[in-house]
Amino acid sequence: MNKKEIPYKIYLEEKEMPSKWYNVRADMKTKPAPLLNPATLQPMTAKELGTVFCDELVRQELDDVNPYIDIPQEILDFYKMYRPSPLVRAYCLEKKLQTPAKIYYKFEGNNTSGSHKLNSAIAQAYYAKKQGLKGVTTETGAGQWGTALSMACSYFDLDCKVFMVKVSYEQKPFRREVMRTYGASVTPSPSTTTQVGQRILAEHPGTTGSLGCAISEAVEAAASDDGYRYVLGSVLNQVLLHQSVIGLEAKAALDKYGIIPDMIIGCAGGGSNLGGLISPFMGEKIRGERDYHFVAVEPASCPSFTRGRFAYDFCDTGRVCPLAKMYTLGSGFIPSSNHAGGLRYHGMSSTLSQLYDDGLMEARSVEQTAVFEAAEQFARVEGILPAPESAHAIRVAIDEALKCKETGEEKTILFGLTGTGYFDMVAYEKYNNGEMTDYIPTDAELEKGFAGLPKVEK
Amino acid sequence: MNKKEIPYKIYLEEKEMPSKWYNVRADMKTKPAPLLNPATLQPMTAKELGTVFCDELVRQELDDVNPYIDIPQEILDFYKMYRPSPLVRAYCLEKKLQTPAKIYYKFEGNNTSGSHKLNSAIAQAYYAKKQGLKGVTTETGAGQWGTALSMACSYFDLDCKVFMVKVSYEQKPFRREVMRTYGASVTPSPSTTTQVGQRILAEHPGTTGSLGCAISEAVEAAASDDGYRYVLGSVLNQVLLHQSVIGLEAKAALDKYGIIPDMIIGCAGGGSNLGGLISPFMGEKIRGERDYHFVAVEPASCPSFTRGRFAYDFCDTGRVCPLAKMYTLGSGFIPSSNHAGGLRYHGMSSTLSQLYDDGLMEARSVEQTAVFEAAEQFARVEGILPAPESAHAIRVAIDEALKCKETGEEKTILFGLTGTGYFDMVAYEKYNNGEMTDYIPTDAELEKGFAGLPKVEK
Repeated sequence: MNKKEIPYKIYLEEKEMPSKWYNVRADMKTKPAPLLNPATLQPMTAKELGTVFCDELVRQELDDVNPYIDIPQEILDFYKMYRPSPLVRAYCLEKKLQTPAKIYYKFEGNNTSGSHKLNSAIAQAYYAKKQGLKGVTTETGAGQWGTALSMACSYFDLDCKVFMVKVSYEQKPFRREVMRTYGASVTPSPSTTTQVGQRILAEHPGTTGSLGCAISEAVEAAASDDGYRYVLGSVLNQVLLHQSVIGLEAKAALDKYGIIPDMIIGCAGGGSNLGGLISPFMGEKIRGERDYHFVAVEPASCPSFTRGRFAYDFCDTGRVCPLAKMYTLGSGFIPSSNHAGGLRYHGMSSTLSQLYDDGLMEARSVEQTAVFEAAEQFARVEGILPAPESAHAIRVAIDEALKCKETGEEKTILFGLTGTGYFDMVAYEKYNNGEMTDYIPTDAELEKGFAGLPKVEK
Repeated sequence: MNKKEIPYKIYLEEKEMPSKWYNVRADMKTKPAPLLNPATLQPMTAKELGTVFCDELVRQELDDVNPYIDIPQEILDFYKMYRPSPLVRAYCLEKKLQTPAKIYYKFEGNNTSGSHKLNSAIAQAYYAKKQGLKGVTTETGAGQWGTALSMACSYFDLDCKVFMVKVSYEQKPFRREVMRTYGASVTPSPSTTTQVGQRILAEHPGTTGSLGCAISEAVEAAASDDGYRYVLGSVLNQVLLHQSVIGLEAKAALDKYGIIPDMIIGCAGGGSNLGGLISPFMGEKIRGERDYHFVAVEPASCPSFTRGRFAYDFCDTGRVCPLAKMYTLGSGFIPSSNHAGGLRYHGMSSTLSQLYDDGLMEARSVEQTAVFEAAEQFARVEGILPAPESAHAIRVAIDEALKCKETGEEKTILFGLTGTGYFDMVAYEKYNNGEMTDYIPTDAELEKGFAGLPKVEK
């Protein structure tokens, strides 16, 4: 295949778009460990989960057998509004780096929610609507998930209650207004509107909140009204299932041109983007059809893969949720206050945790000043100002491309560009003014988090 | 053609993209009046214009003979990074409005600059680079042009000095940071860095600036260093020429499906988007090949088409620029302070002014509360949070679709969606809080602006 024949952007036609999600758990030899009831330490039943989640989403959450699940027509119709997302050949970045590597990125920021989160938000809103619910509750950190869910709920005329981590609520008032424009109500978390919020505020006066804390509040708010269920933008199996559309499209586009990536890189907070991007490729690897080098990139300030423990833990600060087995820093862990952007969750998807533990992928942590350097470099040549989260993947893609420059290797690198940084200009301003700092938690700090892990027999 | 065969988004393949810009002036029976030297009142010569603009751009500015001008390969290469822009069938909006009208929009916000301005920015930066200049100066109002130009200059490694209307500089600090991330310097205008800025500050202490004033400063800054030239994001013939890529792509995409729009709607400030969108269609209309109904939409608070005079006027507040014949409110006109977003220029493209004066298009003014209502309605169903400027066109498209609902007419409506509203959340917040107000200038207020028009014999 001649280099010149590969366009800047590889689009798929409507008929080439995936009509089923891919469920990587069906192919996994060691299945992800089940969620446990925190009271009984027994696996959560569908009935128990159904008090928190929509019924159909419970089925998806528990399904580790079926490799393909039909995407309902209503969701396909919505996907058509902003998908396929472009798969871009980063010719300009390659030229700037003078690397022989071939760099591709799957750009998920080309919808107004500004990120990949919409892929799962629309699915979860659809199932809530289908079940006849009044609305949904959720948490949001950097705001991408809340924005996406607000948009999805507006489309299906569902009520949407968002608990927004207080530090983001204050640093990102415009994110709040986007959600309100789409008709959502937004409450800074911890708040006094829930019992768990009141308890956390009493225990930690002046706290700027955490995702784990906002999850507790959103779950309580859903549990207290039968017309509502709770929805989550990452971590869960169902979310990775919906996000598989990213990887399926990327693979279809690459296949059209006979391109095989050597390395696939994604940022990882709870794992929604990474899990979605890699899943069909991971399926091939598990089935022994083809080998790929997967890299999860996380902030050095919130290093759940690279420095966390693989153990059962609480998913939320208030400890009202089921226990999940995952790489975790402990549900009390909160990244230092200089940490910008998302990727601040204490845990990680159970599915990705199992894959990582099985040695099927690598994880790296990067510091945020280096991440913003990569973001700026990328923006100036590729014309997209990336979200800080996405820039973690850019950092490693650039590092790898520079290694290829040294060695002369013509590696094909694919990374996930999850979204745009329009709402992260406070962080960019700090970087532009040379005021950005890094922070790596000490071992002693991490030990404090681990001390809070629940005692669960294997 | 079956309705179902028309996809949500009509993309063009790379080979279907325009390789030439279309110069509507070549087909115009009455040519736009030339720019005049304010001292001699004689048409500006290429040599005179060359002290302000790049040489090649001067040639384009003066060319009213050649209908097609080749797009240089370097610009085509850059266009490929974000073009073709999607032409979207607004199925969801149609359904929400229950209209038999068929609504299409050409979405120019799918690049990080967030608007159509990049189409001309990259061209102007390219010609500046080709001429061996150090950099360019410009003004920006709402910030879309400055953002686009910063990105373009970064791509070609050119210095970029932006004078940003002070009210926007203060209301939109994040726009400033985007420009800085792309490497530009940003100065609030009026500033003390130029003589004209000092003079305006002395005459109008406490002024929050205007585009006309920022233009004066940018022109002075360019004139005082031979390594710099001034570039402008709207109004000029050269800008409409570059922006014709919007209309050419839209027409090519519609032609693919045999779709003929009855009505083409665009917002109009200086005319860059409207002129670009309509130009190839207008060419057909002028040549008598097909009739279209064109509608320019402007804010009721800055009504240059609907209430202005067609006369020679200064292009800038400081009166350092050539005179242009255009629909104008007078170079001293500044929209009331409750006016949000762009579309705040006192004048209008000479080309569009002539077309309007020749009766080839209609103009309407709309009030901003109604504009934000349309923006919200559009966002909730189409999933794109529009720039306030773009929402002017949405307002009229919705009005027309609702008329079709009354009459049963199946009109095909095309409108230009120039960009996203990510940086306009202060205005959205006002709207969300019910605090948005309207303002229509009185006749007496407009008379004050007209009193400042220069006396030029026809």
